[in-house]
Amino acid sequence: MAGAGPKRRQRIEEVALALQTNNKAQPAATSAPDPDAVERLTRIAANRVAIEEVSPSVDGGRFAAKAVAGHRFVVEADIFCDGHDVLRAALLTRRHDGADWSEAPMRPIGNDRWRAVATFDEIGAHAFTIRAWRDLFATWQAEVTKKHDAGLSLTLELQEGRALVGQTADAAKGLSADDQKALAGLVATLKAATADGDLFSVLMTDKTTALMRRVGLRTNLSSLEAPIPVWVDRERALFSAWYELMPRSMAFSEERHGTFDDVIAHLPYVRDLGFDVLYFPPIHPVGKTNRKGRNNALRAAPDDPGSPYAIGADDGGHDAIHTELGDFESFARLVAAAADHGLEIALDFAIQCSPDHPWLKEHPEWFDWRPDGTIKFAENPPKKYEDIVNVHFYRDAIPSLWFALRDIVLGWIKRGVRIFRVDNPHTKPLPFWEWLIAEVHAKHPEAIFLAEAFTRPKMMKRLAKVGFTQSYSYFTWRNTKHELTEYLTELTDGDMPQIMRPNFFVNTPDINPVFLQTGGRAAHRVRLVLAASLSSNYGLYNGFEICEAAPVPGKEEYLDSEKYQLRVWDFDRPGHIKDDIRLVNRLRRDHAALQQMAGLRFYNAWNDNILYYAKFTADLSDFILFAVSLDPHNPQGATIEVPLWEFGLPDDAVVEGKDLVTGGDLRWEGKMQQVWLTPDDRPYAIWSLKNPSAG
Amino acid sequence: MAGAGPKRRQRIEEVALALQTNNKAQPAATSAPDPDAVERLTRIAANRVAIEEVSPSVDGGRFAAKAVAGHRFVVEADIFCDGHDVLRAALLTRRHDGADWSEAPMRPIGNDRWRAVATFDEIGAHAFTIRAWRDLFATWQAEVTKKHDAGLSLTLELQEGRALVGQTADAAKGLSADDQKALAGLVATLKAATADGDLFSVLMTDKTTALMRRVGLRTNLSSLEAPIPVWVDRERALFSAWYELMPRSMAFSEERHGTFDDVIAHLPYVRDLGFDVLYFPPIHPVGKTNRKGRNNALRAAPDDPGSPYAIGADDGGHDAIHTELGDFESFARLVAAAADHGLEIALDFAIQCSPDHPWLKEHPEWFDWRPDGTIKFAENPPKKYEDIVNVHFYRDAIPSLWFALRDIVLGWIKRGVRIFRVDNPHTKPLPFWEWLIAEVHAKHPEAIFLAEAFTRPKMMKRLAKVGFTQSYSYFTWRNTKHELTEYLTELTDGDMPQIMRPNFFVNTPDINPVFLQTGGRAAHRVRLVLAASLSSNYGLYNGFEICEAAPVPGKEEYLDSEKYQLRVWDFDRPGHIKDDIRLVNRLRRDHAALQQMAGLRFYNAWNDNILYYAKFTADLSDFILFAVSLDPHNPQGATIEVPLWEFGLPDDAVVEGKDLVTGGDLRWEGKMQQVWLTPDDRPYAIWSLKNPSAG
Repeated sequence: MAGAGPKRRQRIEEVALALQTNNKAQPAATSAPDPDAVERLTRIAANRVAIEEVSPSVDGGRFAAKAVAGHRFVVEADIFCDGHDVLRAALLTRRHDGADWSEAPMRPIGNDRWRAVATFDEIGAHAFTIRAWRDLFATWQAEVTKKHDAGLSLTLELQEGRALVGQTADAAKGLSADDQKALAGLVATLKAATADGDLFSVLMTDKTTALMRRVGLRTNLSSLEAPIPVWVDRERALFSAWYELMPRSMAFSEERHGTFDDVIAHLPYVRDLGFDVLYFPPIHPVGKTNRKGRNNALRAAPDDPGSPYAIGADDGGHDAIHTELGDFESFARLVAAAADHGLEIALDFAIQCSPDHPWLKEHPEWFDWRPDGTIKFAENPPKKYEDIVNVHFYRDAIPSLWFALRDIVLGWIKRGVRIFRVDNPHTKPLPFWEWLIAEVHAKHPEAIFLAEAFTRPKMMKRLAKVGFTQSYSYFTWRNTKHELTEYLTELTDGDMPQIMRPNFFVNTPDINPVFLQTGGRAAHRVRLVLAASLSSNYGLYNGFEICEAAPVPGKEEYLDSEKYQLRVWDFDRPGHIKDDIRLVNRLRRDHAALQQMAGLRFYNAWNDNILYYAKFTADLSDFILFAVSLDPHNPQGATIEVPLWEFGLPDDAVVEGKDLVTGGDLRWEGKMQQVWLTPDDRPYAIWSLKNPSAG
Repeated sequence: MAGAGPKRRQRIEEVALALQTNNKAQPAATSAPDPDAVERLTRIAANRVAIEEVSPSVDGGRFAAKAVAGHRFVVEADIFCDGHDVLRAALLTRRHDGADWSEAPMRPIGNDRWRAVATFDEIGAHAFTIRAWRDLFATWQAEVTKKHDAGLSLTLELQEGRALVGQTADAAKGLSADDQKALAGLVATLKAATADGDLFSVLMTDKTTALMRRVGLRTNLSSLEAPIPVWVDRERALFSAWYELMPRSMAFSEERHGTFDDVIAHLPYVRDLGFDVLYFPPIHPVGKTNRKGRNNALRAAPDDPGSPYAIGADDGGHDAIHTELGDFESFARLVAAAADHGLEIALDFAIQCSPDHPWLKEHPEWFDWRPDGTIKFAENPPKKYEDIVNVHFYRDAIPSLWFALRDIVLGWIKRGVRIFRVDNPHTKPLPFWEWLIAEVHAKHPEAIFLAEAFTRPKMMKRLAKVGFTQSYSYFTWRNTKHELTEYLTELTDGDMPQIMRPNFFVNTPDINPVFLQTGGRAAHRVRLVLAASLSSNYGLYNGFEICEAAPVPGKEEYLDSEKYQLRVWDFDRPGHIKDDIRLVNRLRRDHAALQQMAGLRFYNAWNDNILYYAKFTADLSDFILFAVSLDPHNPQGATIEVPLWEFGLPDDAVVEGKDLVTGGDLRWEGKMQQVWLTPDDRPYAIWSLKNPSAG
């Protein structure tokens, strides 16, 4: 190797600049390292403080972590360094588009773990990163304090401390005028101080400590290799109560097809129950070819309306409205009226087509054709679904179909829809959703996508990762204490709340759960309370409020399903549970603890038929206890353990609160209490506890 | 947007090429998407099959996963796709420098998890990646089989199957001549077949299935975003038995300083015990300034040799040899003689300096100086270590010190040393180790670095991540059944074996554990067996074999520690445990199960004083059971559960094996057996079980 040529010397100087904060001297060279080795060294050496195990971080930043504007966003990381110097760390957040970073200090919480809580004010794409550094002045203070306590001479140490302040002042150009002035004042005071005692006093004051903490050099400033993306949604992404109905039944007559104006007339009913999202299955023209009849019959009768999921007919496809429902004008009226009632309309985005969909002629290249020129129907061999054909997404369908589908979503957004329930997303390519949701979000960050995927767990989670705002869940089939505890633990553990937001539907047009079929009114009340409390997003399909649960025998399908016929609902029929619905929706609106997935804990109730848990805010100012019977047939009682320890109270303390079902006051002495639940009168109990230290 | 200009059309064609395998038609365009959107779409769409949760993957590939040449390297990932098509996946491995990939099929193991086992033949930097794709022909076969079983007409399906074969043949250019020929033959046969029955027969044969599986189009071929780095070590990285001694005591006399030639004379002893690594504390010149005396006295007597960790004197530093030990010539003799005895020499790499180290004059910029011009001694305020000064690693020490330290390691490698035990690496910057080990490994992939870090868990793990081959562990302080089970579970769980390889030292010159101080001979035998079986790397410091454990009262330090004086050892003194050492080292050499960290399982022994576990190879051909008393003072008995289920045997089966301590045959009827362990006669039992299905 040649000696120190000008190029090498320049590199060494660059290294020196990158890796030190306060060095003026020229680095010495013992040997003649090759430039590549120096470059590698520089790159590696730049991050002396280790920052790892960052949470949240979805697949290492491959996908965005989910947040909600205005909500707490907790970031944690393992942060440590060689030696024993005092470390500092900061969380930096910003909009994705590269605005300035905002900085908040991170605090150590034990075992080299650090934490900060941020809040995003705006919706849309954001990012965070973490920086950490050695604080030499704080390290100096700590060491000098120990030596002072041991009675050692501090003369040299105090000169070193004064030098640290001087170096900070030398590098003070970027500071505010106030800080520069304070620093200059400190330097002057230290210059004037001659006795060790004076120096010590000045260097150890709270004022000096605070100033140096704020402006001190960030030695060995280290950061994450790349910022972590965060997607910030609006509130409704995390907190929503959905009501599903079929507009065509809203005439409340078998004789007449319901219209959007009929739905408008029904809005006060939905709003009175306390919902905020009103969701419709597809509202597009329904195919005629191979149309399904009542109860999924292979052939439809002449008047049968067909399944709304067989989308597309002569008069249009996914961008059209079924003529009998109305037109764009009446749809606009409905959207406006819903808004007046505090309701948002959610539409179904179901990509399959009826054989009559205009796309078959306009875009034959989006479909699969048989060797004889006929269309390939949807099938699950040996079954064939002859009222439906699927598009494919690759080959000739790229990119034209992808853009067409995006434009359909954007079209409905233009017509006032911002929430989409997506039908069977797991049967369409994951990259398609990643792309489509990103495309829509780039223009409309307020858009919400609910994934209707009931499939294998990893696919469910991946759909959430690629961008779905909310996800249908396995809740519908989780009935026992063990099942519910395990599933909710999975959903609220680790980074899960920043990956997947479940929406707990108690029923859907496709799912009439056995528990509801066999458990009657008590079962409906129990499942309602579980869904509305365990998940901040929940929903139901109409008929649930009147405990309609007649099945196709042996199946989870509803008998006389609205999917294939008009239904005439009597929502006032005896045995309805509308009071329960109003109650839980009111409690959800009044209590921040119920507006988040975080803050759920299960407690001991010594009876496997009683699920006993709390939802609470991070500061414990809102603390709601639930005891829910999982047995709709028999009374159940249990001793329950009141979690006094959460408030730092001893086991024999008194805690006060409210019975949120009766409205009465609550006063419990000691942590062991009794609860008695009955199918008819009281299948669940809900209490709020007052945090005694919240004053 | 303008219409389909030539540039846009070209992009669309690129997209088509990237995203399909068998399309000839021109994609249609419904709207005019902007080029950036198409580019995003193409990038995202390219990986239709999801590949995630890859194991091993250290911080997402930021650091290399560890492997050993010739050993099984298990790779797993979650792999799934939209829809229900048959998926295939392959693990690809190669040298880091970009040689061709070798491919091995991955197999599904349930819940969308896939696995493959690879073997690396060479040591050094490697990488792996994963590819996955849809197998349209296998999908077609599965669907047609179902339809055939349901008695449906298959005419169109069979034409589609023939077309799939044809498309494969059209794209066959890259195939081997044999495969091309076989494929052409299949196409011809299919052309000749006219009846459905004939077509069906040909398309469903095992031969066609195998051929199409081998050569079939890889539709939607997807891969990891970036290859995962793997570092492949030689065998000794994973499997080693260390013996530590101080060469200066090898004269076995207080009057004479030991020499390398004395060590040569002692080699047969070490080899007879069965060790394969012989490790020395620093062999460099020892400082005189502020030299420590016997038992760490502040002032040394004139004849005291000083701590070998106070490195450096007038006659040299880290690249020199302490004159009384020998010279480079006798060191070379020692290295050669050790090799003749099957022993590798391991040296200490301890970066601190005595105040007499030549570097203080040659490179003052590597040290910290006080305002009065004096050197800053090592300290842990208020304590000061005046026989030692530390270099710093940043500021003026970059890059010169880093290169100097690298060159010291390379220098010792040139002198035949390939194993380095690194003193206190956690007090030096992590990036320094990452850089240094990479630099050394680039030239000498056979080099092994053992991190002597006894510090916080995350720092321990990070040192392993940045490149340390082996790591000292907390084993020395894990004594109870709960502690050992928990710690070993942590060390063998998930990716841990591919991150950190522990080396279980039973004692060191710095650690004389209380368990050994108080437990006598039985304690030494117990800890020996635990270390040598629970970890494939283990070690001891001389004196252990004669149960020397006299402490500095109230401390974990050895009394009259060899760190500060010469010792005269009597390795034949009564009560030695050399037979136990020979036994465990022989068993370790004879049994593959003991040469790996994987394959450890704890079983039930109904006595908390008995640790009962097995080590076994992945194929269960080698299966060793250990029952070890954790009580060196009292006899202990227990019912133990013989893990018949591991061999698929019922609870009442008979299993045969050997008592590996006595050499006698073993025959157990039924899974409940008894063991009786005593401090004097039998503190541990070791059995091999014969896997009945291994024939």
